[in-house]
Amino acid sequence: MTLSQIRIVGSGLIGTSIGLALATAGKSVTMIDIDPQAQKLAQDLMGTTESKVGAEVTIIASPLSTISQVISEEIKQGFNLGFIDISSVKTNTVVEVSALGLDLSNFLPTHPMAGREVGGAESARGDLFQGRPWILDSRGVSEELLNAGREIIAICGGHLIDMPVAIHDQAVALVSHLPQIMSSALAAQLEGAPAEWLDLAGTGLRDTTRIAASNSHLWREILTANRQALTPLLDKVIEDLKSLQLSLNSESAVEEFMKAGNRGRSMIPGKHGGVARNYTFLPVVIEDKPGQLAALFDECATAQVNVEDLTIEHSPEQYTGLITLALSKDGAEKLYQHLLKQGWSAHSPR
Amino acid sequence: MTLSQIRIVGSGLIGTSIGLALATAGKSVTMIDIDPQAQKLAQDLMGTTESKVGAEVTIIASPLSTISQVISEEIKQGFNLGFIDISSVKTNTVVEVSALGLDLSNFLPTHPMAGREVGGAESARGDLFQGRPWILDSRGVSEELLNAGREIIAICGGHLIDMPVAIHDQAVALVSHLPQIMSSALAAQLEGAPAEWLDLAGTGLRDTTRIAASNSHLWREILTANRQALTPLLDKVIEDLKSLQLSLNSESAVEEFMKAGNRGRSMIPGKHGGVARNYTFLPVVIEDKPGQLAALFDECATAQVNVEDLTIEHSPEQYTGLITLALSKDGAEKLYQHLLKQGWSAHSPR
Repeated sequence: MTLSQIRIVGSGLIGTSIGLALATAGKSVTMIDIDPQAQKLAQDLMGTTESKVGAEVTIIASPLSTISQVISEEIKQGFNLGFIDISSVKTNTVVEVSALGLDLSNFLPTHPMAGREVGGAESARGDLFQGRPWILDSRGVSEELLNAGREIIAICGGHLIDMPVAIHDQAVALVSHLPQIMSSALAAQLEGAPAEWLDLAGTGLRDTTRIAASNSHLWREILTANRQALTPLLDKVIEDLKSLQLSLNSESAVEEFMKAGNRGRSMIPGKHGGVARNYTFLPVVIEDKPGQLAALFDECATAQVNVEDLTIEHSPEQYTGLITLALSKDGAEKLYQHLLKQGWSAHSPR
Repeated sequence: MTLSQIRIVGSGLIGTSIGLALATAGKSVTMIDIDPQAQKLAQDLMGTTESKVGAEVTIIASPLSTISQVISEEIKQGFNLGFIDISSVKTNTVVEVSALGLDLSNFLPTHPMAGREVGGAESARGDLFQGRPWILDSRGVSEELLNAGREIIAICGGHLIDMPVAIHDQAVALVSHLPQIMSSALAAQLEGAPAEWLDLAGTGLRDTTRIAASNSHLWREILTANRQALTPLLDKVIEDLKSLQLSLNSESAVEEFMKAGNRGRSMIPGKHGGVARNYTFLPVVIEDKPGQLAALFDECATAQVNVEDLTIEHSPEQYTGLITLALSKDGAEKLYQHLLKQGWSAHSPR
C-alpha cells in the first residue's frame, strides 16, 4: 500500500519543499500553517487543492519548540494515524513527545539534511532533498509508519541513513551546527566596518558567511537544544584559534594550521552533495534600463530556449548590467548564435 | 601616451591572467618565471612572442616573500622604468622595497582582489579581474607610473579603488584573511570524525570550508605578513565564541549572536561593490515552460518597473517555477497590483 494523502503542518522552506516533491509524485498534499498567507502560497505551489478528508500521515515541519503542541492539536482534530518529525535536534524532541503520552511506535524521528539560507514557502524547491542524507531512527517504530517514512524519503530523493537519535545529535553538531556558529561569528565581525572595506568582499567572504544569513529564531532553538554536543566542539575550536594567534609570527606554525584545514576539508566526501546540475552559462551584457530583460527573454522564447536560472550583476552607477543565463549545453549554444545574430552583446558560453 | 610593452615576473594564476587581458588588448607581454615550463606555458598563452627590447613597466606577480629580490634582479637586467606590485599585504612590502634604496615614486603598490582555488598559468583567465576591486595607493607615485597602472587596471576591467597601504592591510585582514582563518579552523575540526558523520555534510559545511582548501604555502606568507592587523580581530572573534559558549542555554543570548551574524552578512554589498541595497521582493508563481519569463518581463515593462535582481526556483520535473523579483518598494507594489489585475499568481511583496 502506498500513501495517497499527506498533511504537512508548517509551510516554511522544508515543509513546502517536501510538499512540492510529494505533489509532483501525484500525492494529495494539504499544507497547514499558523500564517494564512504562508499556507496559501504553499498550497498554491502544490498545484492541487487541499484535501478535505483525513490524511494517512502528518509531517510536522513547524519549529522545533512547537512539535509537541502540534501533535496535541493534530490528535484533537482526529489526525492521529502517524507522525513524522523532521526537526534538526532529536534527543530533546523524543523526550518531549514521550511526555505527551504518545505511543512512540506512532512517532518517526527523521531529519532531512538539506536547507537554504533563505526561508519560507517562496524559497521551497521540490528537489531540495535530491541525493541529500535523510536520517531516520527506525528503533521502536511501527512497520506501517516506517514504510510511510521510507516512501516519503524515496519520493523526495533523499539518501536514507538509519542512525540512533543520540548519535545524530553529535554528528550534526559537528557538520552543521558548528559551521553555523563559525559563519555567524565571522559575519558579526563585519558590523561597524567602513563600507569601503566591505566593497572589497570576494567570494571567500561571501561563501564563508553565506549561512550567517540564516534565520536567528530557528537557530536559537537548534543551538540551545544541542548545547551538550556543542560545548566540547567549541572548546576545541577556541583553543585552536588561540594557539594560531600566539604563533602568527611563525611561518611553520601558520603553515601547519593551514594544512590541518586542508586535511579536514579533503575529508568531506563529494557525493550526496545535492543534484549536480550541469548548466552551461551564457553571459550577456545589457543596458541597465527597463525593458531590456523583457527583450532578452523575448529572444529566449524566440530561440525556444528554456532559462534554468540566471544572475544579474550591476551596480547603481554602472550603465550596463551583466546577465548570466544558466541553460542546457545545446540551449546555450543555440541562444548564443541567435543573440549574436540579433546584435546582442553575448559572450561565449562556458 | 599608452603602454605598449610590459614585463610580468611570475607566471602563476594572477600574473598570467593579467598578461592574457593585456595581450588581448594588443599589448606586447613578456612573461617571466623561475620555472621555465611555467614561463613557456604563460608566454604561449599570450599568443605573442616575448619582446627582446626594454619594457616600459614591470608587474611583479611572484610570491610575497620574493618581491624585493625580483626588483633587485630586474634593475640588474636594466628594467628599471617602473614597478607595479600586486601582492596581498602591502605595509611590509613597501618597507622592504624602500630598504632596497629604490625611489618609491617608481613603485606602485596595487592589489587586484581576485583569485581562484586553482593556481598556475593553466588556470589563468583574461576576465579574472572583470568588475573586481583593484586597490592602488597613488600616494607619492610618479604620474607616468600611475597612468600605466590605471591603464592596466582599466584593460583588466578592474574597479579601481585608491586606498593607503596601511588601511588596505586592515581592510583585507577583515574581509579576506579572517575568513580564511575561520574556514581553516572549522575544517580542521573534521579531522578524525567518523566517515558516516561526514557523509551528512551539506552545502553549509561545504561553503564555509571551501577556502580551507587554499594553498598553505601562499597563506602562511600572507597571515604572518599581516599579523599586526589580524591580532585584534582574532581577540574579538575568540571573545565572541567564548561568550556564546557560556550562554548556550539562553535562547535570547543565542538569538542575539545569530542576529549579529545576520547584520554583518547583510552589510556585504552586491557583487560589484557599492552600497548594500534594500530591495522589496515580489514572489510570482509561473508555469515552467518557455515564454513565461518573457511574458512576465513584458508585464514589468508595461508597468514601467525596473527589475533589480531576480531568482528562479524550480526543479526539472516540477510543473511550476517561482520567480522572486527584487524591486524598489514602490515598484514592487505597483507591479504586484498590475500582475494581479492581469491574472498572474503574484504574492504580496515582502
